Amino acid sequence: MNIIKKNIRTVPNWPIEGVMFRDITTLLQNPDALKYTCDLFYSHYKEMDIDKIVGIDARGFIFGAILAYQLGVGFVPVRKKGKLPPDTISCKYSLEYGSNTVEIGKDSIKKDEKVVIIDDLIATGGTIAAAIKLVEQLGGQVLECGFVIELLDLKGSELIKNYKIFALSEFEGE
Amino acid sequence: MNIIKKNIRTVPNWPIEGVMFRDITTLLQNPDALKYTCDLFYSHYKEMDIDKIVGIDARGFIFGAILAYQLGVGFVPVRKKGKLPPDTISCKYSLEYGSNTVEIGKDSIKKDEKVVIIDDLIATGGTIAAAIKLVEQLGGQVLECGFVIELLDLKGSELIKNYKIFALSEFEGE
Repeated sequence: MNIIKKNIRTVPNWPIEGVMFRDITTLLQNPDALKYTCDLFYSHYKEMDIDKIVGIDARGFIFGAILAYQLGVGFVPVRKKGKLPPDTISCKYSLEYGSNTVEIGKDSIKKDEKVVIIDDLIATGGTIAAAIKLVEQLGGQVLECGFVIELLDLKGSELIKNYKIFALSEFEGE
Repeated sequence: MNIIKKNIRTVPNWPIEGVMFRDITTLLQNPDALKYTCDLFYSHYKEMDIDKIVGIDARGFIFGAILAYQLGVGFVPVRKKGKLPPDTISCKYSLEYGSNTVEIGKDSIKKDEKVVIIDDLIATGGTIAAAIKLVEQLGGQVLECGFVIELLDLKGSELIKNYKIFALSEFEGE
């Protein structure tokens, strides 16, 4: 098991019965594991021609911001509804029960800018699909989506199958 | 005006009438301003003996995570209620109308660990005061609190007057 998986704690039945929650706070607390994780992203992305890193609220901010700093490019947050000042554009997407809305600043990405989107985890893929739509609506080009964790059983990669995915670790429903 | 203030956009009357919102997304988008901001934190903290950086949900994650990475120490998130898996401890604090609760992982800080808490902004100081309480309840020692922005009119520094504050920029109600 690599250092990333070893430092992710599994919390059974949280936030609801039947869910195996993959907790990255244990990884964040460990300086070696944090450095290893961020340097894996950096070595993967450092030769790519990237204009902006987009990070998804809130755990995606942690890894996305570090990567933007390392690459020397700007960082753009995609946030939950109502958190960003005007002007924004928004995208509503379905959850198993109900829906969610994410937003991005209207001037945060310019036409034809090359973007990598970072989040801690891809599950069903709803959030990342919405983030991709927002970036493209602003004229940005999504080069790839990077995650610390991919939950294979939830098949999020199928929802965004026209996009490249880079995941540092994979978990099945064990 | 320094590069930090120059890159913070003021949004009048947001989120409510009468508030001058200081928007850091313009700073984050600009690679030079982002690097300048993070390197100011780093040069201030690099000689200090620090065990953990605590970042406050959600914009504090951006600057706190980069600083933790630079210093080679662990990162600990203080989050809004219900976002962290068990076991957590929580602190409720008053707002002008109503209240708010923040949480921290119970095992995230060990006794006598030396901690710096990072957030993007200090306003009335309620959130940072709650974060300090959480760190101390776990036995941690708060060396200092670092902010990108201090809103001087709201006198947050008086609420935490027994603690050192390091703010990279100051705004009055102009």
